[in-house]
Amino acid sequence: MAEAAETLDGWYCLHDFRTINWTEWKAFSSAEKQEAIAELNQLFSDWDLNHQVHEGSYGIYSILGQKADFAFMLLRPTMEELSTIETQFNKSKFAEITEPAYSFVSVVELSNYLGSKNGDPYAHPLVQKRLKPTLPDMGYFCFYPMDKKRQYGDNWYMLPMEERKNLMRSHGQIGRSYAGTITQIITGSVGLDDWEWGVTLFANDPLQFKKIVYEMRFDEASARFGEFGPFYVGLHQSPDAFIQSLSL
Amino acid sequence: MAEAAETLDGWYCLHDFRTINWTEWKAFSSAEKQEAIAELNQLFSDWDLNHQVHEGSYGIYSILGQKADFAFMLLRPTMEELSTIETQFNKSKFAEITEPAYSFVSVVELSNYLGSKNGDPYAHPLVQKRLKPTLPDMGYFCFYPMDKKRQYGDNWYMLPMEERKNLMRSHGQIGRSYAGTITQIITGSVGLDDWEWGVTLFANDPLQFKKIVYEMRFDEASARFGEFGPFYVGLHQSPDAFIQSLSL
Amino acid sequence: MAEAAETLDGWYCLHDFRTINWTEWKAFSSAEKQEAIAELNQLFSDWDLNHQVHEGSYGIYSILGQKADFAFMLLRPTMEELSTIETQFNKSKFAEITEPAYSFVSVVELSNYLGSKNGDPYAHPLVQKRLKPTLPDMGYFCFYPMDKKRQYGDNWYMLPMEERKNLMRSHGQIGRSYAGTITQIITGSVGLDDWEWGVTLFANDPLQFKKIVYEMRFDEASARFGEFGPFYVGLHQSPDAFIQSLSL
Amino acid sequence: MAEAAETLDGWYCLHDFRTINWTEWKAFSSAEKQEAIAELNQLFSDWDLNHQVHEGSYGIYSILGQKADFAFMLLRPTMEELSTIETQFNKSKFAEITEPAYSFVSVVELSNYLGSKNGDPYAHPLVQKRLKPTLPDMGYFCFYPMDKKRQYGDNWYMLPMEERKNLMRSHGQIGRSYAGTITQIITGSVGLDDWEWGVTLFANDPLQFKKIVYEMRFDEASARFGEFGPFYVGLHQSPDAFIQSLSL
Amino acid sequence: MAEAAETLDGWYCLHDFRTINWTEWKAFSSAEKQEAIAELNQLFSDWDLNHQVHEGSYGIYSILGQKADFAFMLLRPTMEELSTIETQFNKSKFAEITEPAYSFVSVVELSNYLGSKNGDPYAHPLVQKRLKPTLPDMGYFCFYPMDKKRQYGDNWYMLPMEERKNLMRSHGQIGRSYAGTITQIITGSVGLDDWEWGVTLFANDPLQFKKIVYEMRFDEASARFGEFGPFYVGLHQSPDAFIQSLSL
Repeated sequence: MAEAAETLDGWYCLHDFRTINWTEWKAFSSAEKQEAIAELNQLFSDWDLNHQVHEGSYGIYSILGQKADFAFMLLRPTMEELSTIETQFNKSKFAEITEPAYSFVSVVELSNYLGSKNGDPYAHPLVQKRLKPTLPDMGYFCFYPMDKKRQYGDNWYMLPMEERKNLMRSHGQIGRSYAGTITQIITGSVGLDDWEWGVTLFANDPLQFKKIVYEMRFDEASARFGEFGPFYVGLHQSPDAFIQSLSL
Repeated sequence: MAEAAETLDGWYCLHDFRTINWTEWKAFSSAEKQEAIAELNQLFSDWDLNHQVHEGSYGIYSILGQKADFAFMLLRPTMEELSTIETQFNKSKFAEITEPAYSFVSVVELSNYLGSKNGDPYAHPLVQKRLKPTLPDMGYFCFYPMDKKRQYGDNWYMLPMEERKNLMRSHGQIGRSYAGTITQIITGSVGLDDWEWGVTLFANDPLQFKKIVYEMRFDEASARFGEFGPFYVGLHQSPDAFIQSLSL
Repeated sequence: MAEAAETLDGWYCLHDFRTINWTEWKAFSSAEKQEAIAELNQLFSDWDLNHQVHEGSYGIYSILGQKADFAFMLLRPTMEELSTIETQFNKSKFAEITEPAYSFVSVVELSNYLGSKNGDPYAHPLVQKRLKPTLPDMGYFCFYPMDKKRQYGDNWYMLPMEERKNLMRSHGQIGRSYAGTITQIITGSVGLDDWEWGVTLFANDPLQFKKIVYEMRFDEASARFGEFGPFYVGLHQSPDAFIQSLSL
Repeated sequence: MAEAAETLDGWYCLHDFRTINWTEWKAFSSAEKQEAIAELNQLFSDWDLNHQVHEGSYGIYSILGQKADFAFMLLRPTMEELSTIETQFNKSKFAEITEPAYSFVSVVELSNYLGSKNGDPYAHPLVQKRLKPTLPDMGYFCFYPMDKKRQYGDNWYMLPMEERKNLMRSHGQIGRSYAGTITQIITGSVGLDDWEWGVTLFANDPLQFKKIVYEMRFDEASARFGEFGPFYVGLHQSPDAFIQSLSL
Repeated sequence: MAEAAETLDGWYCLHDFRTINWTEWKAFSSAEKQEAIAELNQLFSDWDLNHQVHEGSYGIYSILGQKADFAFMLLRPTMEELSTIETQFNKSKFAEITEPAYSFVSVVELSNYLGSKNGDPYAHPLVQKRLKPTLPDMGYFCFYPMDKKRQYGDNWYMLPMEERKNLMRSHGQIGRSYAGTITQIITGSVGLDDWEWGVTLFANDPLQFKKIVYEMRFDEASARFGEFGPFYVGLHQSPDAFIQSLSL
């Protein structure tokens, strides 16, 4: 048995992608539209307050292409809070004219591949900051889930710890070369959702998403061992901009 | 031909995942809502009585993310009882505003990989207890189906019994290290559903689902031979809490 | 080129799985329900007469889990008769509240792996009986489609005839050890449907489905070469019981 | 780089599979039904005239099982004509109660694996006849798309031309042994649809579809290199029989 | 780690495939149809103006078969502009009777496999022209997404740069032999959509799509390393022709 990687785990995370049924939205009466928007404003206001006091974080994104029209990314200390938010949204007037497109359940994760083993890592302020991240105010958003391959000949989980560490170190170097350009949040979903990790990227120039993912694909950790799910890309929206985008 | 593993088999099991159509629920008249809730209360009351007298067991879970809104896990001595319950629910008023999301048909299973061969294993009280389990009152629920791989190079079913036993023993050791933290029920579904086994985990801390599944993934039995289906995670709900969650 | 297996072929077979839209069924007026049931009774009565005179056979099954609510298994001497029955059902009042779930088109098949080559095998009464089978009156039903693998390293169709014969002989021995417990009908679907064979099992104890399929999975013919589609399991229903199950 | 096979290409081909929504058909008023049937008659009459003057061909088939209720197979000299026919059908009254099930876009193809290289092959009358085929008036129809594998160990496109020729010659011999029993039309779809070829078979005895496809599966060209999509099987219908089949 | 390929990136690109619900279109009142067409005309007029001043480009295509009824291909300097266009269309009257079929998000890309490394490639007028292409006025359109394989034995991303360059050079030679017959636009989608590249081909003879893709399939770059998604083929339509095609 290969030595298992250890993880540090932070806030729980829900990525929630939805499409808008515009025909139904247009068919709402003026009163219904107002009710829907009032509820949305209340919801966003609650999320924003929580975000201000750093008891969680959130982001609203407009997704490009037909896979989804928008996404919420929500971070909270407990899974129960995420469940409450999800149900609250599902009961809302606005949710009546949306349809589920994709969701992802995970928890912010740092692995021991890159860290040191001295002391209690949770005690480190930088670790705390990364485990309980404030979603950045950057213009573009990219999300994709991924696995490490377990195929005959290319089985990540059968590699010795040392080899995995070397591969992740090289991988991390590419990531660091994008520091300042791209902010990345890794969330672990083993046992929680169908893929092993979610990768969320933020940038002010969406071309950088293509640059970093393509460069990493030549890195052995991805080239031999990465398996990738659907990619979602979109634009960051403030609550006001989101509501403004509903005007006809 | 490799020596076939033998199994001890207990209660039949139905995992039943559904989504709620909230727009339709809201559109129900007050009388319709009352009828739906009265029927649900009766159903839950029947299940609870059955559970009390240990002629079966049940659990109600609120599922996180878009894959499902809730799940019932039902255990009964016969497949016929499960079929009756399923049809009864499908005919109910509440079922009108739900949609099927996923289901899994299986039977509680213990394998001979770990057991001894002395005497009639069914006669052992501990075995009886594990084959006819009472679903635990723990806060969180995790379910996933799985197969053992049969690929060229990694074919579980071509391994000698001794090798499979060794692999399962190592696997079981990880499981036992979570004793007290995680309760696990294995149900076999070969010949009954599309995957070979269902794994249901219960914990008071959902992070432990991630910890145990990730640690096991480095174990050869999983790393080389495990194939995993969709993962569902959620919160345990009492019948009252479930009905309370329907209030608008 | 490997020597092709030869087959003996009997009655054509349609497995027809459907779900019931209970909301729509409940919304039928009393007159509509009566019309639907009268048509069903007529249909079942026709099938039963055909079954009595051994010009075909049929079975009605209640399926467990969400994959389907019920299944018809229909055997007829010609594909045209199956087509006529299918269209007749589709036009019926009852069909209005059902939705297609899965279907499988095949023909009852015996292979030359196990038989002798002396004389005209079709002339043998036992062969005739197996090619034109009467569906048994046993309590439980199991259906799954399957292929033989054609992958690099594990390619059934590149094996010499002698090796395939040996593998099928061993496979058949497991089958025979369940004689009296399980009745099995193999139907071939190469060129007719997406899988190469359909396996239909009948038993009075549904646990035996799990036992036989699991035991066979360790047999090289399955372990290395079997690929399996969805599994459907359910309870046998008489026409009267089926109609009774529609009562609200 | 392996020497590329060359093809002779004839008429464009559209396979168009649809299901019928019988509930909606029954709900049509008598006038609506008459309008739908009048349009269908006009459409079929146009197709038949085109077929008579050999500027194309067509076939109507009733499909067995739930994958589709009927299929049109249409051949025309240009892709534009097929597009026009498709749009014309989609706008028709009858199309309102049908739903798309599957379609396949291709062009009749002969490959140079089997032909000689002397002279202009298009000048040969037999070649012309095969590239612009009249769909035969045989009772049964079978369609499936297929690819040649490009997997490590079994990569058709990396084989030398001579080896591919030998494999295709052996394959063709099986085909020829069914001459008179089965008529086969190969259409190429590389660059036009998701599979590389479509195979359409016609016979008066549908069992022959199973016989030929099963026999070929043991041939190396299929055993090692064939990948097969969904199989559709059905009965040939005249325009009148198709319209008759709509009567309730 | 293999040396990563570098790319030159131009305009962002959205391929947007939709189906038309003809029943709903027919049910529109005359006023609704006029409103829908007026909006479409305005949209197309905006696109055409943008195209005239070379601040983007667009194409409208009628798709053959059931995968889609039409496609828009849109090019713009920023992702934000594409997002705005998409939302604008989604809110339109015409969009009410269309359904999403497939979309693809990418950016026009040239790779360094074929180019020289001297000077700033973006400064070259020919490079500028290829990165900001005017969609050609040719009769037929073909689109498909693709990946380079990362499988054990055939892993493109583990090859040395020199070997990838040689393979791409050979591949490019086939492409150049179709110069004048086929216009090709490669768009990169790594990090933006589920496949790594989109290939869009234009020709006046749709048979050439089949010819080029088939010939390339024997080239090692495709034979060993190409993985292909769905293929969409159709006819170029002017805005007027598109609107004309809606007449009943």
